[in-house]
Amino acid sequence: MNIPTINNLKRVVIIGAGFAGLQVAKKLRRDKYQVVLIDKNNYHTFQPLLYQVATAGLEPDSIAHSIRNIIKKTKNFFFRLAYVHYINTKKQKIYTNIGDLYYDYLIISTGSVTNYFGNKNIEYFSLPMKSITEALNLRSLILQNFESALLTNNIKEKKSIMTFVIVGGGPTGVELAGALAEMKKYILPYDYPNLDDKYMNIHLLQATSRLLDGMSEKSAKQAYKNLKELGVIIWLNCLVQDYDGKIVFMEKNQKIESSNVIWAAGVKGSIIKGFLKEDIMGNRILVDNYLKTIKYKNIFAIGDVAYIKSYQNGHPMMAQPAIQQGNYLAQNFNHFFNNKKNIKPFIYKNIGSMATIGRNKAVCDFPYFKLKGFLAWIVWMFIHLVSLVGFRNKVIALTNWIIQYFHYHNSVRLIIRPFYRKKNHLKKN
Amino acid sequence: MNIPTINNLKRVVIIGAGFAGLQVAKKLRRDKYQVVLIDKNNYHTFQPLLYQVATAGLEPDSIAHSIRNIIKKTKNFFFRLAYVHYINTKKQKIYTNIGDLYYDYLIISTGSVTNYFGNKNIEYFSLPMKSITEALNLRSLILQNFESALLTNNIKEKKSIMTFVIVGGGPTGVELAGALAEMKKYILPYDYPNLDDKYMNIHLLQATSRLLDGMSEKSAKQAYKNLKELGVIIWLNCLVQDYDGKIVFMEKNQKIESSNVIWAAGVKGSIIKGFLKEDIMGNRILVDNYLKTIKYKNIFAIGDVAYIKSYQNGHPMMAQPAIQQGNYLAQNFNHFFNNKKNIKPFIYKNIGSMATIGRNKAVCDFPYFKLKGFLAWIVWMFIHLVSLVGFRNKVIALTNWIIQYFHYHNSVRLIIRPFYRKKNHLKKN
Repeated sequence: MNIPTINNLKRVVIIGAGFAGLQVAKKLRRDKYQVVLIDKNNYHTFQPLLYQVATAGLEPDSIAHSIRNIIKKTKNFFFRLAYVHYINTKKQKIYTNIGDLYYDYLIISTGSVTNYFGNKNIEYFSLPMKSITEALNLRSLILQNFESALLTNNIKEKKSIMTFVIVGGGPTGVELAGALAEMKKYILPYDYPNLDDKYMNIHLLQATSRLLDGMSEKSAKQAYKNLKELGVIIWLNCLVQDYDGKIVFMEKNQKIESSNVIWAAGVKGSIIKGFLKEDIMGNRILVDNYLKTIKYKNIFAIGDVAYIKSYQNGHPMMAQPAIQQGNYLAQNFNHFFNNKKNIKPFIYKNIGSMATIGRNKAVCDFPYFKLKGFLAWIVWMFIHLVSLVGFRNKVIALTNWIIQYFHYHNSVRLIIRPFYRKKNHLKKN
Repeated sequence: MNIPTINNLKRVVIIGAGFAGLQVAKKLRRDKYQVVLIDKNNYHTFQPLLYQVATAGLEPDSIAHSIRNIIKKTKNFFFRLAYVHYINTKKQKIYTNIGDLYYDYLIISTGSVTNYFGNKNIEYFSLPMKSITEALNLRSLILQNFESALLTNNIKEKKSIMTFVIVGGGPTGVELAGALAEMKKYILPYDYPNLDDKYMNIHLLQATSRLLDGMSEKSAKQAYKNLKELGVIIWLNCLVQDYDGKIVFMEKNQKIESSNVIWAAGVKGSIIKGFLKEDIMGNRILVDNYLKTIKYKNIFAIGDVAYIKSYQNGHPMMAQPAIQQGNYLAQNFNHFFNNKKNIKPFIYKNIGSMATIGRNKAVCDFPYFKLKGFLAWIVWMFIHLVSLVGFRNKVIALTNWIIQYFHYHNSVRLIIRPFYRKKNHLKKN
C-alpha cells in the first residue's frame, strides 16, 4: 500500500469512514499514532439523508464529502481508497485490492449492509437504499417508471409500474414513504399530466404493530396520521414472505402487485472475512464495554458493526451510537499514552431521535420533551444541517431546501444512471 | 409511443432537446401543432459548462435541467425518453426503442458527437467529454488517478498516471486545461501532500498555429499567456497521429507518455440512419437557407447537425447558432398559419464568443469590443448564469462559484462512478 513505517509510532488502521470511523480518524493523536483510514469510497456518506437523494430532493454532493477534504491535516495520516477482503488476526495484517498492510491496532468501523434475512428472491428483486449509488439507482427507477407508465394503456401494467412498496416502517421507510407521497402530490400532476395519479400507490409495510419502533408511541402515532394524510397505505403487523419481481406475498394470502419493492426492513453488520463464529453475535462483532473484541487484544469494533455484549440487543444501528463510540475510543487511545488508569466503560447517551414526514412535518423525541409538526420539522432541518460535514454541503443543502420549500416543482429530476426498467435487468446482463 | 392523433393538428416531431430543439419545442404554437419532443435523456444539458463537471467544480444538477420541468405547459405537448434508430422518409415515420411514430413535420436537432477522424485507437483509448456521463467518468478518472499514483514508487508509472494530454485547443480544450491546472495548483498539495506536483503535467495540443481558432488573435494570445502562467504545456502546429493507451504519437517522432488523453479535437453531426449520401455534407445534414433539407419538404435540421449550404463551412457548432436557428424555425412554423409570404432566409448574428481560463480569468470577443482578465471573467460568469436554464440551477451554480472563489479547496471531489483505472478496462470487461 506504499505506506511508510515510522519508528516509535504504532500504526492504527481504521476500516470504514462512516460516522464511527471518521470520529476516530479525526481525533487520534498523530504524535502518538500513525493513522491509516481505509474506505471503499473516497467520500463519507451522511446516510440519514440518502432518502432525499433517492427522491430527487438533494444531489449526492450535498450529503457526501470527500474524506481527504474532511481530514485536512495530513501529518502521519494516510487515506487509502480500497476494499478490504480479509483480516489475518495472527499475522496482524489486512488484505485489500491494493495490497496488504500490517497493523498494530485495528479498528473496524465497517458499518452495516441491507439485511434480507436470507430471502434470495427479495435480495434479487427488491431495491436497497444504503449507499449513494443505490439511492441514485432508486431515483432513476422512480423517474424511469413514470416514463414507462406513459407508454402503456394496459391498466394492470401501469398500476404495477406505478405502485411502490416500501418494506420497513423505521425512520428510513417512513421518510421515504413521505417523500414519495409528495412526489405523487406535487410532481406527478405537473410533469406527467397524462398519468392518472390514482394509479400511483405507496404502500408502507411494517412487521410490528406500530411505526418507528425505536421512538415513542406518541411520535409513532403522529407519523402514522401524517403519512395517512399524505395518502400512504400503511400495513401494520405485516410480514413479507416473498417477492417474485411482480407480486409481494404476505401472510394470510394477501398480495400487492408492484414492480418496485424498496427494502428498508433491516440491516446487519458488514463483517470482513477472518473472524471466527464465536467472535460474532447477531451479525455483529462482539465487543466488551471498552469496545475491544473479546479475543483479540489489538482489534476494536465500533458503530453499526459492533455489538456490546452487556447492552441488551446491542446499540441501535444509527449515527448517534456510532459517533459516540468513535469519540470514546479515540479518547481511550489517546489516554493510553498518558498512562491514565481507571478508564471508564462506554456508556451510550440517547440524545433523541427524529423522523421527517414529507417536506414540512416531522416527529422528534428528546429526553425531556417531544415535538411534532412544523416546529419539529424546523428542528429536524436545523440538526441535519449542523450535522452535515463541511461548509459547502451545508450551504448547498440549505439552498436546495429553501428553493424546494417554496417551489417544490423545482427539484432536480435527472435520470443520470443508464436507464433500465428493473434491477434484474442489470443483474441478468 | 402511445401519443394520440388529434384532428386538424399537424404533428411536429423534434428529435433532440439541445439548445436548438428546445427552442423550437418551447416556441411552436400548440394551438396549431401537436409537438412531440424526443431525447435519449430526460434532461437538457448546458454543454458549455461540462468541463466544470469533469473537474469537480459543479455537480450535474447545476448544468442539467429536466425537460418536463422546462416545458411546463403540456397542452398538445408530449415528451418521450427514447433513442431514435431510424427515419423512414417515405413513410414519414421514426423508429425508436419504444416504438414508431408518424410525423407530419420532422425537425432534426440531434447535435453532434465526438469526431475521432476515423482513428480507432484514439477512439478506443482516449476520453471524450460531450455528455454528463462522460464528464462524470472523466472526473472519476482524474481523482482515481491521484489515488493510484500514491500506490506506486515507480516514477515512470507515476508520471504517466499524472500526465494529462488534452487534444484540441478550442474553448473546451482551453477551459479544461485551465481547470486541470488549477486542480494541480490548489487541490493536489492539500489532498495529496505525498504526491510531488512536478509529476503532474498538463499538455494542450493544438493542430493549428494558435489557440481558440474561432476567436480573435488577441484573445488567443491572451489565453496562451494565461495558460502558460498556470503551467500548461502548449503544443501548437501539433498533429496527433496515434495513441496506444500509453504513448501519444505526434509528427516528427515526438511523443508524450500519458495514460490520460482527453479528446476535444472535434465534433461531427450526429446523424440518424435513413438519410442518403447526397443529403449529407461533412458529417452534417444539408439544408437550405430556410433550414429545410434539400430533398424532403417536411424535414428540417437545426443546430450542430445542420449545414447551411450557402454558409461557408457551415455555422460554428456552438450554442449560439443553435439557439438562433431554433428560434428562427419556430417562428417560420408559426407564420405558416398566418399565411405570411416573403419569409426571410436565416441569417446568423455573431453576438460574440468567450473562453474562461481558470477561476478568475477569461477572454471575450464581442462585435464591438474585446475583454480579458478578471473583468472578462465576471462577464463570462454573468452570461453563463443568465443562460443556465431554471431558477434553481442558477442559484446552485452561483452559490458553488462563490464558495469556490473564496475556498477553492471546498469543491466536490466525489468518485461516484464505479472505480476503474482506464477506459479500456471498462471496455474489455
